[in-house]
Amino acid sequence: MQLFYTPGINPAHPQYFLNEEESKHAIRVMRLEKGDEVQLIDGKGGLYAASILDPHPKRTILQINSVTAEFNKRNHYLHIAIAPTKNIERTEWFLEKATEVGIDEISLIICQRSERKDAKVERLNKIITSAIKQSIKAYHPVLNEPLTFNQLLAKPFSGQQFIAHCDVGEKVNLKDGLQTHSNYLILIGPEGDFAPAEINGALKNDFKAITLGESRLRTETAALEACFEVNFLNR
Amino acid sequence: MQLFYTPGINPAHPQYFLNEEESKHAIRVMRLEKGDEVQLIDGKGGLYAASILDPHPKRTILQINSVTAEFNKRNHYLHIAIAPTKNIERTEWFLEKATEVGIDEISLIICQRSERKDAKVERLNKIITSAIKQSIKAYHPVLNEPLTFNQLLAKPFSGQQFIAHCDVGEKVNLKDGLQTHSNYLILIGPEGDFAPAEINGALKNDFKAITLGESRLRTETAALEACFEVNFLNR
Repeated sequence: MQLFYTPGINPAHPQYFLNEEESKHAIRVMRLEKGDEVQLIDGKGGLYAASILDPHPKRTILQINSVTAEFNKRNHYLHIAIAPTKNIERTEWFLEKATEVGIDEISLIICQRSERKDAKVERLNKIITSAIKQSIKAYHPVLNEPLTFNQLLAKPFSGQQFIAHCDVGEKVNLKDGLQTHSNYLILIGPEGDFAPAEINGALKNDFKAITLGESRLRTETAALEACFEVNFLNR
Repeated sequence: MQLFYTPGINPAHPQYFLNEEESKHAIRVMRLEKGDEVQLIDGKGGLYAASILDPHPKRTILQINSVTAEFNKRNHYLHIAIAPTKNIERTEWFLEKATEVGIDEISLIICQRSERKDAKVERLNKIITSAIKQSIKAYHPVLNEPLTFNQLLAKPFSGQQFIAHCDVGEKVNLKDGLQTHSNYLILIGPEGDFAPAEINGALKNDFKAITLGESRLRTETAALEACFEVNFLNR
Protein backbone atom coordinates (compact mmCIF):
# COMPACT_ATOMS: atom_id res chain seq x y z
CA MET A 1 0.00 0.00 0.00
CA GLN A 2 1.22 3.52 -0.83
CA LEU A 3 2.74 5.23 2.21
CA PHE A 4 3.42 8.94 2.72
CA TYR A 5 5.60 10.67 5.29
CA THR A 6 3.48 13.54 6.61
CA PRO A 7 5.29 15.22 9.55
CA GLY A 8 2.90 18.20 9.43
CA ILE A 9 -0.30 16.22 9.90
CA ASN A 10 -2.72 17.15 12.68
CA PRO A 11 -4.13 13.99 14.37
CA ALA A 12 -7.26 15.90 15.36
CA HIS A 13 -8.09 16.74 11.74
CA PRO A 14 -10.32 14.36 9.71
CA GLN A 15 -8.71 15.33 6.40
CA TYR A 16 -5.21 15.91 5.05
CA PHE A 17 -4.01 17.63 1.90
CA LEU A 18 -1.04 16.08 0.13
CA ASN A 19 1.36 18.76 -1.13
CA GLU A 20 1.83 19.28 -4.85
CA GLU A 21 4.71 16.84 -5.19
CA GLU A 22 2.96 14.12 -3.18
CA SER A 23 -0.30 14.71 -5.03
CA LYS A 24 1.40 14.37 -8.39
CA HIS A 25 3.11 11.17 -7.23
CA ALA A 26 -0.13 9.72 -5.87
CA ILE A 27 -2.39 10.57 -8.80
CA ARG A 28 -0.13 10.80 -11.87
CA VAL A 29 2.53 8.21 -10.94
CA MET A 30 0.74 5.75 -8.64
CA ARG A 31 -2.58 6.37 -10.44
CA LEU A 32 -4.51 6.28 -7.18
CA GLU A 33 -8.24 6.86 -7.48
CA LYS A 34 -11.08 8.01 -5.22
CA GLY A 35 -11.51 5.56 -2.38
CA ASP A 36 -8.06 3.98 -2.68
CA GLU A 37 -6.44 3.36 0.68
CA VAL A 38 -3.06 4.78 1.71
CA GLN A 39 -0.95 4.92 4.87
CA LEU A 40 0.62 7.97 6.50
CA ILE A 41 3.40 8.18 9.07
CA ASP A 42 4.09 11.42 10.92
CA GLY A 43 7.54 10.55 12.24
CA LYS A 44 6.38 11.05 15.82
CA GLY A 45 4.84 7.60 16.28
CA GLY A 46 1.58 8.18 14.42
CA LEU A 47 0.45 5.69 11.78
CA TYR A 48 -2.65 6.75 9.84
CA ALA A 49 -5.02 4.75 7.65
CA ALA A 50 -6.48 7.07 5.04
CA SER A 51 -8.26 6.97 1.69
CA ILE A 52 -8.39 9.25 -1.32
CA LEU A 53 -11.33 11.65 -0.99
CA ASP A 54 -10.44 13.89 -3.94
CA PRO A 55 -7.78 12.61 -6.37
CA HIS A 56 -6.68 16.12 -7.35
CA PRO A 57 -3.25 15.94 -9.11
CA LYS A 58 -1.99 19.05 -7.29
CA ARG A 59 -3.86 19.02 -3.97
CA THR A 60 -5.14 15.53 -3.27
CA ILE A 61 -7.47 15.38 -0.29
CA LEU A 62 -7.19 12.39 2.00
CA GLN A 63 -9.84 11.16 4.42
CA ILE A 64 -8.26 9.99 7.69
CA ASN A 65 -10.00 6.75 8.66
CA SER A 66 -8.02 5.76 11.75
CA VAL A 67 -4.97 6.74 13.75
CA THR A 68 -2.57 4.49 15.64
CA ALA A 69 -0.44 6.41 18.12
CA GLU A 70 2.98 5.20 19.30
CA PHE A 71 3.07 2.61 16.50
CA ASN A 72 5.78 0.03 17.28
CA LYS A 73 7.12 2.25 20.07
CA ARG A 74 10.63 1.12 20.98
CA ASN A 75 11.44 -0.14 24.49
CA HIS A 76 14.77 1.68 24.66
CA TYR A 77 16.49 4.79 23.29
CA LEU A 78 19.60 4.42 21.14
CA HIS A 79 21.78 7.38 20.25
CA ILE A 80 24.85 6.56 18.15
CA ALA A 81 27.52 9.21 17.62
CA ILE A 82 29.61 8.27 14.59
CA ALA A 83 32.49 9.96 12.82
CA PRO A 84 31.32 10.41 9.21
CA THR A 85 33.35 8.16 6.91
CA LYS A 86 35.79 9.48 4.30
CA ASN A 87 33.57 7.86 1.68
CA ILE A 88 30.19 9.31 2.69
CA GLU A 89 28.31 6.44 0.99
CA ARG A 90 29.41 4.22 3.86
CA THR A 91 27.77 6.59 6.34
CA GLU A 92 24.69 6.70 4.12
CA TRP A 93 24.22 2.96 4.20
CA PHE A 94 24.79 2.89 7.95
CA LEU A 95 21.93 5.39 8.28
CA GLU A 96 19.67 3.30 6.02
CA LYS A 97 20.45 0.04 7.80
CA ALA A 98 20.34 1.49 11.33
CA THR A 99 16.93 3.00 10.54
CA GLU A 100 15.67 -0.38 9.34
CA VAL A 101 17.04 -2.21 12.37
CA GLY A 102 16.08 0.49 14.88
CA ILE A 103 17.75 3.68 16.08
CA ASP A 104 16.48 6.88 17.69
CA GLU A 105 19.19 9.50 17.29
CA ILE A 106 22.40 9.90 15.33
CA SER A 107 25.12 12.48 15.89
CA LEU A 108 27.94 13.07 13.41
CA ILE A 109 31.13 13.72 15.34
CA ILE A 110 34.29 15.30 13.97
CA CYS A 111 37.27 13.70 15.69
CA GLN A 112 41.01 14.44 15.80
CA ARG A 113 41.69 11.79 13.17
CA SER A 114 38.60 12.42 11.04
CA GLU A 115 39.48 12.77 7.37
CA ARG A 116 35.99 14.11 6.73
CA LYS A 117 35.24 17.30 8.65
CA ASP A 118 31.64 17.84 7.58
CA ALA A 119 28.51 16.15 6.26
CA LYS A 120 25.33 17.34 4.52
CA VAL A 121 22.64 16.60 7.08
CA GLU A 122 19.76 17.46 4.75
CA ARG A 123 20.85 14.88 2.17
CA LEU A 124 21.55 12.25 4.83
CA ASN A 125 18.18 12.90 6.42
CA LYS A 126 16.45 12.10 3.11
CA ILE A 127 18.03 8.64 3.27
CA ILE A 128 16.61 8.13 6.75
CA THR A 129 13.17 9.30 5.58
CA SER A 130 13.09 6.87 2.66
CA ALA A 131 14.22 4.09 5.01
CA ILE A 132 11.38 4.71 7.49
CA LYS A 133 8.91 4.64 4.60
CA GLN A 134 10.41 1.43 3.24
CA SER A 135 10.37 -0.30 6.64
CA ILE A 136 7.15 1.38 7.89
CA LYS A 137 8.57 3.10 10.95
CA ALA A 138 6.27 5.68 12.53
CA TYR A 139 9.16 7.31 14.39
CA HIS A 140 11.71 9.30 12.36
CA PRO A 141 15.23 9.00 13.83
CA VAL A 142 16.78 12.36 14.70
CA LEU A 143 19.95 13.28 12.79
CA ASN A 144 21.92 16.07 14.46
CA GLU A 145 24.17 18.61 12.76
CA PRO A 146 27.88 17.67 12.87
CA LEU A 147 29.70 18.65 16.05
CA THR A 148 33.16 18.06 17.44
CA PHE A 149 33.97 15.15 19.71
CA ASN A 150 34.42 17.51 22.66
CA GLN A 151 31.16 19.32 21.94
CA LEU A 152 29.41 15.96 22.11
CA LEU A 153 31.08 15.07 25.41
CA ALA A 154 29.90 18.42 26.79
CA LYS A 155 26.24 17.66 25.95
CA PRO A 156 24.28 16.21 28.87
CA PHE A 157 23.01 12.65 28.40
CA SER A 158 21.12 10.59 30.94
CA GLY A 159 21.66 6.89 30.40
CA GLN A 160 24.43 4.40 29.70
CA GLN A 161 27.37 5.78 27.74
CA PHE A 162 29.79 3.63 25.78
CA ILE A 163 32.81 4.21 23.56
CA ALA A 164 33.94 1.58 21.03
CA HIS A 165 37.64 1.91 20.25
CA CYS A 166 40.42 -0.35 18.95
CA ASP A 167 43.12 0.86 21.34
CA VAL A 168 44.40 -1.17 24.28
CA GLY A 169 42.67 -0.98 27.66
CA GLU A 170 39.94 -2.66 29.66
CA LYS A 171 36.74 -3.24 27.70
CA VAL A 172 33.41 -4.86 28.42
CA ASN A 173 31.12 -6.78 26.12
CA LEU A 174 27.79 -5.00 25.61
CA LYS A 175 26.26 -8.35 26.54
CA ASP A 176 27.69 -7.89 30.05
CA GLY A 177 27.70 -4.11 30.44
CA LEU A 178 24.24 -3.19 29.16
CA GLN A 179 21.11 -2.69 31.27
CA THR A 180 18.04 -3.36 29.11
CA HIS A 181 15.17 -0.91 28.46
CA SER A 182 17.42 2.08 29.06
CA ASN A 183 18.93 5.02 27.15
CA TYR A 184 22.24 4.45 25.38
CA LEU A 185 24.82 6.71 23.81
CA ILE A 186 27.54 4.89 21.86
CA LEU A 187 30.58 6.55 20.29
CA ILE A 188 32.06 5.15 17.06
CA GLY A 189 35.33 6.62 15.84
CA PRO A 190 36.77 7.47 12.41
CA GLU A 191 38.82 5.21 10.12
CA GLY A 192 41.97 5.95 12.15
CA ASP A 193 40.16 5.28 15.47
CA PHE A 194 39.78 7.76 18.34
CA ALA A 195 42.93 9.50 19.58
CA PRO A 196 44.12 8.45 23.07
CA ALA A 197 43.15 11.90 24.43
CA GLU A 198 39.61 11.39 23.13
CA ILE A 199 39.36 7.94 24.70
CA ASN A 200 40.60 9.27 28.04
CA GLY A 201 38.21 12.20 27.80
CA ALA A 202 35.29 9.83 27.29
CA LEU A 203 36.34 7.54 30.14
CA LYS A 204 36.62 10.56 32.46
CA ASN A 205 33.05 11.46 31.42
CA ASP A 206 31.64 8.12 32.57
CA PHE A 207 31.77 6.36 29.23
CA LYS A 208 32.50 2.62 29.41
CA ALA A 209 34.88 1.19 26.81
CA ILE A 210 33.27 -1.68 24.91
CA THR A 211 34.43 -4.33 22.47
CA LEU A 212 32.30 -5.27 19.47
CA GLY A 213 34.01 -8.63 19.03
CA GLU A 214 37.34 -9.86 17.71
CA SER A 215 36.85 -8.74 14.11
CA ARG A 216 38.48 -5.61 12.78
CA LEU A 217 35.44 -3.64 11.60
CA ARG A 218 35.12 -0.59 9.42
CA THR A 219 33.62 2.50 11.05
CA GLU A 220 30.17 2.00 9.54
CA THR A 221 30.19 -1.74 10.26
CA ALA A 222 31.14 -1.13 13.89
CA ALA A 223 28.30 1.38 14.23
CA LEU A 224 25.80 -1.07 12.75
CA GLU A 225 27.15 -3.90 14.92
CA ALA A 226 26.54 -1.72 18.00
CA CYS A 227 23.04 -0.95 16.71
CA PHE A 228 22.30 -4.66 16.16
CA GLU A 229 23.63 -5.60 19.60
CA VAL A 230 21.62 -2.98 21.51
CA ASN A 231 18.39 -3.86 19.70
CA PHE A 232 19.04 -7.58 20.05
CA LEU A 233 19.72 -7.34 23.78
CA ASN A 234 16.51 -5.34 24.26
CA ARG A 235 14.32 -7.80 22.36
CA MET B 1 51.48 -3.31 6.92
CA GLN B 2 50.98 -4.49 3.32
CA LEU B 3 48.96 -7.70 3.14
CA PHE B 4 48.67 -10.14 0.23
CA TYR B 5 46.15 -12.90 -0.38
CA THR B 6 48.19 -15.90 -1.47
CA PRO B 7 45.93 -18.97 -1.75
CA GLY B 8 48.62 -20.91 -3.63
CA ILE B 9 51.31 -20.63 -0.96
CA ASN B 10 53.01 -23.75 0.37
CA PRO B 11 53.52 -23.52 4.17
CA ALA B 12 56.51 -25.87 3.94
CA HIS B 13 58.33 -23.53 1.56
CA PRO B 14 60.69 -20.84 2.98
CA GLN B 15 60.15 -18.49 0.05
CA TYR B 16 57.23 -17.24 -2.02
CA PHE B 17 57.13 -15.51 -5.40
CA LEU B 18 54.54 -12.77 -5.81
CA ASN B 19 52.90 -12.92 -9.24
CA GLU B 20 53.51 -10.14 -11.77
CA GLU B 21 50.51 -8.07 -10.68
CA GLU B 22 51.32 -8.39 -6.98
CA SER B 23 55.01 -7.70 -7.60
CA LYS B 24 54.20 -4.54 -9.53
CA HIS B 25 51.84 -3.40 -6.75
CA ALA B 26 54.39 -4.15 -4.04
CA ILE B 27 57.44 -2.59 -5.69
CA ARG B 28 56.10 0.09 -8.06
CA VAL B 29 52.99 1.20 -6.16
CA MET B 30 53.77 0.48 -2.50
CA ARG B 31 57.48 1.12 -3.09
CA LEU B 32 58.46 -1.77 -0.83
CA GLU B 33 62.20 -2.40 -0.51
CA LYS B 34 64.48 -5.27 0.47
CA GLY B 35 63.82 -6.22 4.09
CA ASP B 36 60.39 -4.59 4.32
CA GLU B 37 57.88 -6.73 6.18
CA VAL B 38 54.56 -7.88 4.71
CA GLN B 39 51.76 -10.22 5.72
CA LEU B 40 50.24 -13.04 3.71
CA ILE B 41 46.95 -14.85 4.19
CA ASP B 42 46.23 -18.09 2.36
CA GLY B 43 42.46 -18.15 2.89
CA LYS B 44 42.70 -21.50 4.66
CA GLY B 45 43.60 -20.13 8.10
CA GLY B 46 47.28 -19.43 7.49
CA LEU B 47 48.71 -16.04 8.39
CA TYR B 48 52.33 -15.51 7.31
CA ALA B 49 54.91 -12.95 8.37
CA ALA B 50 57.27 -12.37 5.47
CA SER B 51 59.83 -9.86 4.24
CA ILE B 52 61.05 -8.74 0.84
CA LEU B 53 64.08 -10.81 -0.18
CA ASP B 54 64.30 -9.58 -3.78
CA PRO B 55 62.21 -6.50 -4.71
CA HIS B 56 61.88 -7.55 -8.34
CA PRO B 57 59.06 -5.52 -9.99
CA LYS B 58 57.78 -8.57 -11.88
CA ARG B 59 58.70 -11.52 -9.65
CA THR B 60 59.27 -10.28 -6.12
CA ILE B 61 60.70 -12.94 -3.84
CA LEU B 62 59.45 -13.04 -0.26
CA GLN B 63 61.18 -14.68 2.68
CA ILE B 64 58.68 -16.43 4.95
CA ASN B 65 59.66 -15.62 8.54
CA SER B 66 56.84 -17.27 10.48
CA VAL B 67 53.52 -19.00 9.95
CA THR B 68 50.46 -18.90 12.19
CA ALA B 69 48.02 -21.71 11.39
CA GLU B 70 44.29 -21.49 12.10
CA PHE B 71 44.58 -17.74 12.71
CA ASN B 72 41.43 -16.52 14.52
CA LYS B 73 39.72 -19.84 13.85
CA ARG B 74 35.99 -19.45 14.35
CA ASN B 75 34.15 -21.48 17.00
CA HIS B 76 31.15 -22.18 14.75
CA TYR B 77 30.28 -22.61 11.05
CA LEU B 78 27.81 -20.21 9.45
CA HIS B 79 26.36 -20.88 6.01
CA ILE B 80 23.86 -18.29 4.78
CA ALA B 81 21.80 -18.98 1.67
CA ILE B 82 20.46 -15.72 0.30
CA ALA B 83 18.38 -14.85 -2.75
CA PRO B 84 20.49 -12.33 -4.70
CA THR B 85 18.84 -8.92 -4.60
CA LYS B 86 17.34 -7.21 -7.66
CA ASN B 87 19.96 -4.48 -7.16
CA ILE B 88 23.13 -6.58 -6.93
CA GLU B 89 24.95 -3.82 -5.02
CA ARG B 90 22.86 -4.73 -2.00
CA THR B 91 24.12 -8.32 -2.20
CA GLU B 92 27.65 -7.01 -2.65
CA TRP B 93 27.56 -5.02 0.55
CA PHE B 94 26.04 -7.92 2.41
CA LEU B 95 29.04 -9.99 1.31
CA GLU B 96 31.49 -7.29 2.39
CA LYS B 97 29.85 -6.79 5.78
CA ALA B 98 29.25 -10.47 6.48
CA THR B 99 32.91 -11.17 5.71
CA GLU B 100 33.98 -8.45 8.16
CA VAL B 101 31.63 -9.69 10.88
CA GLY B 102 32.27 -13.40 10.24
CA ILE B 103 30.78 -15.95 7.86
CA ASP B 104 32.03 -19.25 6.43
CA GLU B 105 29.89 -20.04 3.41
CA ILE B 106 27.37 -18.24 1.22
CA SER B 107 24.98 -19.78 -1.27
CA LEU B 108 23.00 -17.72 -3.78
CA ILE B 109 19.54 -19.22 -4.11
CA ILE B 110 17.09 -18.57 -6.92
CA CYS B 111 13.57 -18.63 -5.49
CA GLN B 112 10.08 -18.63 -6.98
CA ARG B 113 9.74 -14.90 -6.40
CA SER B 114 13.33 -13.95 -7.23
CA GLU B 115 13.48 -11.05 -9.66
CA ARG B 116 17.17 -11.78 -10.21
CA LYS B 117 17.82 -15.26 -11.60
CA ASP B 118 21.62 -15.18 -11.66
CA ALA B 119 24.73 -13.58 -10.19
CA LYS B 120 28.37 -13.30 -11.24
CA VAL B 121 30.18 -15.33 -8.60
CA GLU B 122 33.66 -14.32 -9.78
CA ARG B 123 32.93 -10.63 -9.33
CA LEU B 124 31.21 -11.17 -5.97
CA ASN B 125 34.12 -13.31 -4.80
CA LYS B 126 36.51 -10.40 -5.44
CA ILE B 127 34.50 -8.34 -2.95
CA ILE B 128 34.90 -11.09 -0.35
CA THR B 129 38.65 -11.26 -1.03
CA SER B 130 39.14 -7.52 -0.57
CA ALA B 131 37.08 -7.70 2.62
CA ILE B 132 39.25 -10.45 4.14
CA LYS B 133 42.34 -8.40 3.30
CA GLN B 134 40.82 -5.27 4.82
CA SER B 135 39.77 -7.05 8.02
CA ILE B 136 42.76 -9.47 8.12
CA LYS B 137 40.83 -12.73 8.00
CA ALA B 138 42.95 -15.80 7.31
CA TYR B 139 39.92 -17.83 6.24
CA HIS B 140 38.29 -16.98 2.90
CA PRO B 141 34.49 -17.50 3.01
CA VAL B 142 33.24 -19.89 0.35
CA LEU B 143 30.83 -18.44 -2.21
CA ASN B 144 28.89 -21.11 -4.11
CA GLU B 145 27.52 -20.88 -7.64
CA PRO B 146 23.82 -19.90 -7.77
CA LEU B 147 21.39 -22.80 -7.37
CA THR B 148 17.64 -23.10 -7.05
CA PHE B 149 15.90 -23.17 -3.69
CA ASN B 150 15.01 -26.85 -4.19
CA GLN B 151 18.56 -27.74 -5.20
CA LEU B 152 19.74 -26.21 -1.93
CA LEU B 153 17.17 -28.15 0.11
CA ALA B 154 18.39 -31.35 -1.58
CA LYS B 155 21.99 -30.75 -0.46
CA PRO B 156 22.93 -32.55 2.75
CA PHE B 157 23.78 -30.32 5.72
CA SER B 158 24.65 -31.47 9.21
CA GLY B 159 23.79 -28.83 11.79
CA GLN B 160 20.98 -26.47 12.72
CA GLN B 161 18.86 -25.26 9.81
CA PHE B 162 16.76 -22.11 9.91
CA ILE B 163 14.52 -20.23 7.50
CA ALA B 164 13.75 -16.52 8.00
CA HIS B 165 10.45 -15.57 6.38
CA CYS B 166 7.82 -12.84 6.82
CA ASP B 167 4.78 -15.09 6.40
CA VAL B 168 2.51 -16.13 9.27
CA GLY B 169 3.31 -19.21 11.35
CA GLU B 170 5.18 -20.25 14.47
CA LYS B 171 8.67 -18.78 14.71
CA VAL B 172 11.47 -18.90 17.25
CA ASN B 173 13.99 -16.26 18.19
CA LEU B 174 17.56 -17.35 17.32
CA LYS B 175 18.33 -16.40 20.94
CA ASP B 176 16.11 -19.29 22.03
CA GLY B 177 16.51 -21.76 19.17
CA LEU B 178 20.27 -21.73 18.64
CA GLN B 179 22.79 -24.16 20.14
CA THR B 180 26.17 -22.46 20.34
CA HIS B 181 29.43 -23.74 18.76
CA SER B 182 27.55 -25.62 16.07
CA ASN B 183 26.98 -25.53 12.29
CA TYR B 184 24.20 -23.31 10.97
CA LEU B 185 22.43 -22.96 7.65
CA ILE B 186 20.10 -19.96 7.41
CA LEU B 187 17.82 -19.22 4.46
CA ILE B 188 17.06 -15.60 3.50
CA GLY B 189 14.43 -14.98 0.83
CA PRO B 190 14.07 -12.50 -2.03
CA GLU B 191 12.39 -9.07 -1.93
CA GLY B 192 8.95 -10.69 -2.26
CA ASP B 193 9.73 -13.27 0.47
CA PHE B 194 9.69 -17.05 0.09
CA ALA B 195 6.60 -18.60 -1.49
CA PRO B 196 4.41 -20.66 0.90
CA ALA B 197 5.44 -23.85 -0.93
CA GLU B 198 9.10 -23.02 -0.30
CA ILE B 199 8.46 -22.35 3.39
CA ASN B 200 6.59 -25.65 3.75
CA GLY B 201 9.33 -27.46 1.87
CA ALA B 202 11.94 -26.11 4.26
CA LEU B 203 9.88 -26.96 7.35
CA LYS B 204 9.44 -30.51 6.05
CA ASN B 205 13.24 -30.68 5.68
CA ASP B 206 13.83 -29.91 9.38
CA PHE B 207 14.34 -26.17 8.99
CA LYS B 208 13.09 -24.08 11.93
CA ALA B 209 11.28 -20.85 11.12
CA ILE B 210 12.93 -17.89 12.85
CA THR B 211 12.10 -14.26 13.42
CA LEU B 212 14.79 -11.59 13.16
CA GLY B 213 12.80 -9.08 15.22
CA GLU B 214 9.80 -6.84 14.66
CA SER B 215 11.35 -4.64 11.99
CA ARG B 216 10.57 -5.11 8.32
CA LEU B 217 14.05 -5.70 6.89
CA ARG B 218 15.31 -5.72 3.33
CA THR B 219 16.76 -9.00 2.08
CA GLU B 220 20.39 -7.97 2.60
CA THR B 221 19.66 -6.42 6.00
CA ALA B 222 17.91 -9.58 7.17
CA ALA B 223 20.88 -11.66 6.04
CA LEU B 224 23.32 -9.42 7.88
CA GLU B 225 21.09 -9.39 10.99
CA ALA B 226 21.17 -13.21 10.99
CA CYS B 227 24.95 -13.07 10.60
CA PHE B 228 25.30 -10.63 13.50
CA GLU B 229 23.02 -12.71 15.74
CA VAL B 230 24.80 -16.01 15.13
CA ASN B 231 28.24 -14.50 15.73
CA PHE B 232 27.03 -12.57 18.76
CA LEU B 233 25.44 -15.65 20.34
CA ASN B 234 28.66 -17.60 19.79
CA ARG B 235 30.89 -14.97 21.37
